[in-house]
Amino acid sequence: MIQNLLILGLCLIAFSAGSSAHTDDNDRMHPKVSFPQSSGKQYEDASYWKKNARDTLAKKLKEPIIETEAKNTVFFLGDGMSLPTVTAARIYKGQLEKLEYGEEASLFFESFPNTAISKTFCSDSQTADSACSATAYLTGVKANIYTIGVKPTVNLGNCEAQMNVTNQVESVLAWAQAAGKSTGIITTTRITHASPSGTYAHIAHRDWENDDMVRKSGQNPDTCDDIAEQLILRRPGINVNVILGGGRREFTPTSVIDPEEKIGGKRTDNKNLIEIWKVLKSGKKAQYVSTRAEFEKIDPKETDFVLGLFNYDHLSYHLDSTEDPSLPELTKKAIEILSRNPKGYFLFVEGGRIDHAHHDNMAQKALMETVMMDKAVETAANMTSENDTLILVTADHAHVFSISGYPKRGNPIMGTAGTSDKDNLPYTTLSYANGPGYKRPTSTGERYDISNDDTSHKDYKQPTGLPVYSETHGGDDVAIFSRGPYSHYLSGVVHQNYIPHLIGYASCTGSGLRSCSSK
Amino acid sequence: MIQNLLILGLCLIAFSAGSSAHTDDNDRMHPKVSFPQSSGKQYEDASYWKKNARDTLAKKLKEPIIETEAKNTVFFLGDGMSLPTVTAARIYKGQLEKLEYGEEASLFFESFPNTAISKTFCSDSQTADSACSATAYLTGVKANIYTIGVKPTVNLGNCEAQMNVTNQVESVLAWAQAAGKSTGIITTTRITHASPSGTYAHIAHRDWENDDMVRKSGQNPDTCDDIAEQLILRRPGINVNVILGGGRREFTPTSVIDPEEKIGGKRTDNKNLIEIWKVLKSGKKAQYVSTRAEFEKIDPKETDFVLGLFNYDHLSYHLDSTEDPSLPELTKKAIEILSRNPKGYFLFVEGGRIDHAHHDNMAQKALMETVMMDKAVETAANMTSENDTLILVTADHAHVFSISGYPKRGNPIMGTAGTSDKDNLPYTTLSYANGPGYKRPTSTGERYDISNDDTSHKDYKQPTGLPVYSETHGGDDVAIFSRGPYSHYLSGVVHQNYIPHLIGYASCTGSGLRSCSSK
Repeated sequence: MIQNLLILGLCLIAFSAGSSAHTDDNDRMHPKVSFPQSSGKQYEDASYWKKNARDTLAKKLKEPIIETEAKNTVFFLGDGMSLPTVTAARIYKGQLEKLEYGEEASLFFESFPNTAISKTFCSDSQTADSACSATAYLTGVKANIYTIGVKPTVNLGNCEAQMNVTNQVESVLAWAQAAGKSTGIITTTRITHASPSGTYAHIAHRDWENDDMVRKSGQNPDTCDDIAEQLILRRPGINVNVILGGGRREFTPTSVIDPEEKIGGKRTDNKNLIEIWKVLKSGKKAQYVSTRAEFEKIDPKETDFVLGLFNYDHLSYHLDSTEDPSLPELTKKAIEILSRNPKGYFLFVEGGRIDHAHHDNMAQKALMETVMMDKAVETAANMTSENDTLILVTADHAHVFSISGYPKRGNPIMGTAGTSDKDNLPYTTLSYANGPGYKRPTSTGERYDISNDDTSHKDYKQPTGLPVYSETHGGDDVAIFSRGPYSHYLSGVVHQNYIPHLIGYASCTGSGLRSCSSK
Repeated sequence: MIQNLLILGLCLIAFSAGSSAHTDDNDRMHPKVSFPQSSGKQYEDASYWKKNARDTLAKKLKEPIIETEAKNTVFFLGDGMSLPTVTAARIYKGQLEKLEYGEEASLFFESFPNTAISKTFCSDSQTADSACSATAYLTGVKANIYTIGVKPTVNLGNCEAQMNVTNQVESVLAWAQAAGKSTGIITTTRITHASPSGTYAHIAHRDWENDDMVRKSGQNPDTCDDIAEQLILRRPGINVNVILGGGRREFTPTSVIDPEEKIGGKRTDNKNLIEIWKVLKSGKKAQYVSTRAEFEKIDPKETDFVLGLFNYDHLSYHLDSTEDPSLPELTKKAIEILSRNPKGYFLFVEGGRIDHAHHDNMAQKALMETVMMDKAVETAANMTSENDTLILVTADHAHVFSISGYPKRGNPIMGTAGTSDKDNLPYTTLSYANGPGYKRPTSTGERYDISNDDTSHKDYKQPTGLPVYSETHGGDDVAIFSRGPYSHYLSGVVHQNYIPHLIGYASCTGSGLRSCSSK
């Protein structure tokens, strides 16, 4: 131990001596922001790592190439689940589960055999929003920012163009319906939010979730369908078997007081779309539910249609105490209902609030939402066979979220990574390039001191480089993880809009290439 | 156009009205930091994107699964080439090449059929440095931070443990030599730097590049081999055919004046390892070169061994005017020499200064170094067949580098992304969580105004969230891109140390699983 300290001391002398050679030899600067490494602690040994890699290879050699038709497809979308988010969520999960360190954990979907890199830019935008991105990964066409289910020739806010069917593009969910499959949509956001809307809506502005927002944009709601209307009244929304999420307010008039929130809905056209849904489904095995108790009572064997709206707005974050059903619970029930169709199903499941938490710089909530979506993936995987069910997990865009070095193994992911060698103040492992977590410097321009902050509080806003009200998306690529039929073609670097073409191919739906007809 | 402006104006009113609902509906905040989207400009249309995706699928369906022995392996390592770096370099390349926008560009290695996600944490460290990481991706074992080619039971700075052969782990380069293949090492850094050292060194501290650094750490250089010595005098370094990079100073004594830098070397043991190399190679077709002119004169057909050290320290950045041979040129010559061996070869090529530029927050240099490495990949791919040559491209670790939203398509990647809706000051698209690019706030605590900065100058240091002398690495996963024999097993999410096990399998080298013996 004394010897180690001596070595460390001498090293630090050497490093200090070298610090002027900063530009051409950065690496020698590292110890200044690091920690004593030679603690004598023993981690996994060499034989562990050799065996681990050999086991991975042996497993990979046995992975089947599955080229049978994908009867079912389950599409998991982690909204804003950038690659750094996946890494941090993995460590967070490992530390939640009290593994020895945390980094050695694995999200369930990381066990999938195939991965690809997805390019997310939109037709007119270097960085995607969730709307143009949903159009890409659900219809196979890149669109303009804030637009959903319409061609890139439709400009933002042009409702006349939106309503022209020749400008609309169909989603993989619509393709599945055309093939006689059952369909479902699940999200933790309002069901009319950008990502889920990508499965059923054609809209020139994502904010047109109700008629009032259409009107406020200067459009005529009588001739311009809003998103909630499209879900309840138009194809393919009207035919969706399972609809589970939040956002009751988009479906009810201002005059109808919400049972939970005790205020009126958002609609000014007096349409109660929940009641209309019930009427449209009368005579069918259909149920509207809005509470956990009602949800739990649903008998999948006796249900062909379910509309579950569990919140006035988005569902609550998992880290906030909530009565809302969890994403794994929603996924389980949906698959139980949908899998009764012998022709199979298409199910879209969104972990939608990863994105919201990131926008607020609340990293811990973003990680927990990721972990919960991963549990939903595990649920789906355990209920299905890779021989007939394609499961894919991806994100719509990244965030400006990063994991700073050089904390030691097992360092709490929500904690600090070290102390700056320039201003001698600590810094967090997780941070953002921008956002509301920005800590204003002291009156003399010194960096805010986080020493007394509870960085692991669920509502803590991690520091950022500059202030904006809502942290921005990131323009970097995201990953696609997949298993099941033809998932080996979800490999390499692809445009995001390649995904539905592959789904169509694997499931023999849509008008593109199909595996069943090419044989 | 007037209609569009009207819509935009009305939208902004709606957005402003919604801005208090910030926590539960972040997306409505986007326009505040954005730009008018409805410019009427036409980008690619829907049929373009459908055809693009269909072509991708048709190409993927034809990609052969290659299960013949990998006679040759070329391993490209982009030091610090995080996924955001890959995305930004792609756009940078597209804009350099004057494509219409830039985002539609593709790095050459992005055309490879297979991709995997690589987990980079080291035995004792949540975030990797280039040393422990090199140990993982070259020997198959995760090690402690700053250590190279030794087991994780070797503590940092313990030379006695390092010198014990039972603590050393062999690299894929050594495995290739044992199988009778030729070998080569190319880098833009000192050839004794952490990444290239991973192919040949066993060292308890990466800074021990010469005997003087060993001594300064309190070790006895007589019994503790430094990295330069190991390259010239020990196996496998002594048998390497092609050694091309920088760092003459690590090989020459303080008394020997460098022909270019006009100062002495770093060695205090009076060993001139360049002269020793020449002596050891006497009678063989061997050449030492240190200038472009000498390099160009090398006749590959008459050369079995080459030691090329083109700089006292690292090679210059490509964006700085330089006489140093470029990475594509070095790669071409190396393959010409190595491919004369009928048993094949293993070549390691590092774009080593992506990392250095990032450490200095000089994003443009990091992107250009990435583009130059990509050109070297293209060179290698064009000189080889995917039927007998495994080419893989990966990174050792990430950086805390991000691409902020929401610039429009074609916005200069080195420019600004927008203006903050909180402090009304512009911000750059590219930035870092930390590093020397930190702009100190004004004396009253206001954010530094970049308006008059030349953000596209090659030496511009992009803004950061907090000041440290050297920007830190990032802990997020990196990507692996590959083509050739058995590259389809470089898929899914893997530990970094899986890579050499796959190389050994594909090339029938090493002591792990081998494709040739399993048949």
